[in-house]
Amino acid sequence: MNPQLHELKSRLIEINDLNSAAALLRWDQTTYMPAGGAEARGRQLATLGSLAHAKFTDPAIGRLLDRLERETAALAYDSDDAALLRVTRREYDRAVRLPVAFVSELNQHTAAAYQVWTTARPANDFARVRPNLEKTLDLSRRMAGFFPGYESIADPLIDFSDYGMKTATVRAVFSELRARLVPLVRAIAEKPAADDRCLRHDVPEAQQLAFGLDVIRRFGFDFERGRQDKTHHPFMTKFSLGDVRITTRVRPHDITDSLFSTLHESGHAMYELGIRRDYEGTPLAEGTSSGVHESQSRLWENVVGRSLGFWQFFYPRLQAAFPQQLGGTGIDTFYRAVNRVARTLIRTDADEVTYNLHVMLRFDLELDLLEGRLAVKDLPRAWGERFERDFGLAVPDDRDGVLQDVHWFAGLIGGAFQGYTLGNVLSAQFFDAARRAVPGIPADITRGEFGALHGWLGENVYQHGSKFTAAELVERATGAPMSIEPYMAYLWSKYQPLYGLEANPAAAAGAPRR
Amino acid sequence: MNPQLHELKSRLIEINDLNSAAALLRWDQTTYMPAGGAEARGRQLATLGSLAHAKFTDPAIGRLLDRLERETAALAYDSDDAALLRVTRREYDRAVRLPVAFVSELNQHTAAAYQVWTTARPANDFARVRPNLEKTLDLSRRMAGFFPGYESIADPLIDFSDYGMKTATVRAVFSELRARLVPLVRAIAEKPAADDRCLRHDVPEAQQLAFGLDVIRRFGFDFERGRQDKTHHPFMTKFSLGDVRITTRVRPHDITDSLFSTLHESGHAMYELGIRRDYEGTPLAEGTSSGVHESQSRLWENVVGRSLGFWQFFYPRLQAAFPQQLGGTGIDTFYRAVNRVARTLIRTDADEVTYNLHVMLRFDLELDLLEGRLAVKDLPRAWGERFERDFGLAVPDDRDGVLQDVHWFAGLIGGAFQGYTLGNVLSAQFFDAARRAVPGIPADITRGEFGALHGWLGENVYQHGSKFTAAELVERATGAPMSIEPYMAYLWSKYQPLYGLEANPAAAAGAPRR
Repeated sequence: MNPQLHELKSRLIEINDLNSAAALLRWDQTTYMPAGGAEARGRQLATLGSLAHAKFTDPAIGRLLDRLERETAALAYDSDDAALLRVTRREYDRAVRLPVAFVSELNQHTAAAYQVWTTARPANDFARVRPNLEKTLDLSRRMAGFFPGYESIADPLIDFSDYGMKTATVRAVFSELRARLVPLVRAIAEKPAADDRCLRHDVPEAQQLAFGLDVIRRFGFDFERGRQDKTHHPFMTKFSLGDVRITTRVRPHDITDSLFSTLHESGHAMYELGIRRDYEGTPLAEGTSSGVHESQSRLWENVVGRSLGFWQFFYPRLQAAFPQQLGGTGIDTFYRAVNRVARTLIRTDADEVTYNLHVMLRFDLELDLLEGRLAVKDLPRAWGERFERDFGLAVPDDRDGVLQDVHWFAGLIGGAFQGYTLGNVLSAQFFDAARRAVPGIPADITRGEFGALHGWLGENVYQHGSKFTAAELVERATGAPMSIEPYMAYLWSKYQPLYGLEANPAAAAGAPRR
Repeated sequence: MNPQLHELKSRLIEINDLNSAAALLRWDQTTYMPAGGAEARGRQLATLGSLAHAKFTDPAIGRLLDRLERETAALAYDSDDAALLRVTRREYDRAVRLPVAFVSELNQHTAAAYQVWTTARPANDFARVRPNLEKTLDLSRRMAGFFPGYESIADPLIDFSDYGMKTATVRAVFSELRARLVPLVRAIAEKPAADDRCLRHDVPEAQQLAFGLDVIRRFGFDFERGRQDKTHHPFMTKFSLGDVRITTRVRPHDITDSLFSTLHESGHAMYELGIRRDYEGTPLAEGTSSGVHESQSRLWENVVGRSLGFWQFFYPRLQAAFPQQLGGTGIDTFYRAVNRVARTLIRTDADEVTYNLHVMLRFDLELDLLEGRLAVKDLPRAWGERFERDFGLAVPDDRDGVLQDVHWFAGLIGGAFQGYTLGNVLSAQFFDAARRAVPGIPADITRGEFGALHGWLGENVYQHGSKFTAAELVERATGAPMSIEPYMAYLWSKYQPLYGLEANPAAAAGAPRR
């Protein structure tokens, strides 16, 4: 190997080791750490974060990149070395704009703010988080300020998680999607509500967890290279390509809540586990954007896990596991229950149809905060007004309102939410492409077989890591740029029969369907 | 604060953050890590270890120490600042002798050697570990070679874990102890063996663990600052003074094995948890030597946890927890069973009386290896011969012979074992001193009350961390230098009535008793 390239990779792997250690510290913080460990843990995370940042922004890395870019200018765009240099350059140019002192301040602030939020949310106490949130907003603006020349102040923040996206692009997608979703939500709301009481039963935790683990084993989750633990808020994290972990929560009176959380996180994990092993330790060994990442979790959770075919295979097994609770419930009732559409307060509990309205609310409020149209002190009021407008529901308190999501209380304001809706949109587009390539996939699912789907995703999405941008990857894998059409077609084709809706107005108007 | 002292502490805390992160990575490796994580984990540990070593041996630390030592020469010996400088100087002078490349090689070798041992022991395959062990011996000799001027090649290695001890001192203590133990072992062997079948019952894991946790809660283990998990080999580890963890193993057919392991590790943990909080992150925030550390674990496990008074309180509770298994067994039978003396193969399962013979065997073999009288290839044979001589038992295989302990397979040869016996000796000496200071302690124990004992240990041992050397601490806390007399008196006073032995020959000869 070119000695400069070898040196660059060695440095990147060392930095990755520090970041992986930090990831384990965070995982432990939410899974097993006793309360007394919190103070030192915040300091340890700040130390590791600052060291990793200092090592990555070492001018020696810039010199290596300069020299390697000259020497490898003739490499094909999709060669691994070219991709490594391209992605490292992008992240290096971004990182060197951030002063070490700022990174350290941000790390310390977010660790402290997170701790406060963990007590403020149960106490329904927005006043307790307000000073931190004001500082977070200030830090978010200062962060954007290190990347002058943007169109919207949120652009640099969105770029961190969804590289290549701009506020204007997201706005355009969201605006079109909103226009198409609102009639669907309205049409469903006019029908009798689905009954999901069959899901509200006492189910022992161990059996809930065992069932979910069996499902993701069939999906192809590799337990030699991963595991699941319990946390208050489910997430996926990675310590190496040989160790990718997920977490779930368990609600003792809910048969499927933990299950869907497990399926969701397994989708994130299988993406990371499917990345080419020789990318280990480099910036290529990450999912390429938050939107594409979320597409993988939502694909397994919803497009697969809430489909009728999936339950044709698994429902008899679920009944066998919980005969007392589900013995008298038919699959049709159960299938309607797990696809119940309802306007509810909590984003992470929302159904597929209303979910995106939760995201859009947050996205718009983030912009209002960043662009100075909204003060932090007025955020709970603004949340309540917007929620009532979009959902027709009064927000009873801040706990289930503005305090419900961790994002603003453990990170920046801006760029945190758009990926969820981009992921929903892309989940249908990727599944559509997989089904066109392997027409037997839907039938496989009814037999509990997922090899062909997992294989297609591995080949077309997972293995590439960050080698291609989200836009490139979508185009290569699906043959088209991102589009909301497959997603809207998916929703209508599913919910029209479920709720006995009139014809899809878009389809009726001759809108393209794939 | 003196700005140089402030800078020194900041640097030490940053180094401690790296070492604490590494400790968490090791804890995870043995508790929850999936097998696929092993390769990257080894690399991550090597990265953190090398970084911490490089930062600690930075010449800037030497300059800070030089300057601070001049400026603070007038400080009292037992001032905290003087102690910090003294202990940091000792560790710095030691660390700067080790080349970075050597530390990195050692870290990588021991991580790899440990992995091989985890498969070689169950496979009873000494040949598989032999090349690694030969390299370990070579590395151990090279390590000693960085500290020229020693009397015995083991001296520098012993000095790492038991500062101030030399091979000659350990040999002298062991030789005297051996001369006094052998008659006791012989006297017991002439009596009918105790019957411990009452301990061999199936007991559900969850109830075993719950009982142990209840006991250490009464000891004063703080679950806000600690927790217990399961591992193959029990240990204690610390990520900060607010987060000290223990592990235990569970044998499903043994009522007390997991319990005594929990009591043992809780003793280590309470020592660390009792260190003054303002030492956090500095070299003072560690137990002062492996011997003193082991004295704390053995005190709670044996001197307290295998005493009749302890079981007068806890046995009715244990019977209530396991009525089917223990309902028909009286306390006398049970007490004899948990104090059964027998020559057995495994050190960690050994009783209080024969335990030290296991340690002496290893200590002598370490010396033979280091001093070139024994080759690694001949180690299994030498082990078997010595074991037969000391225990009158043939060693059936290497799994339960030379492969049984992790130490040589995950660290250096030399300095690993003497602390266990020094700890046994000191456990009786500390308990004796506590009882002299607070005569009510034995009666407290029969009521399940441990506040006075915990308090005395906190005041006289725990809080000081590494401020005083082991020798200083023993003298301050017990009013005398280390002596085997309290230990021998403890053993005789306990086992004489248990086994109906003749009078203690030492006591009969008028040897001092305290």
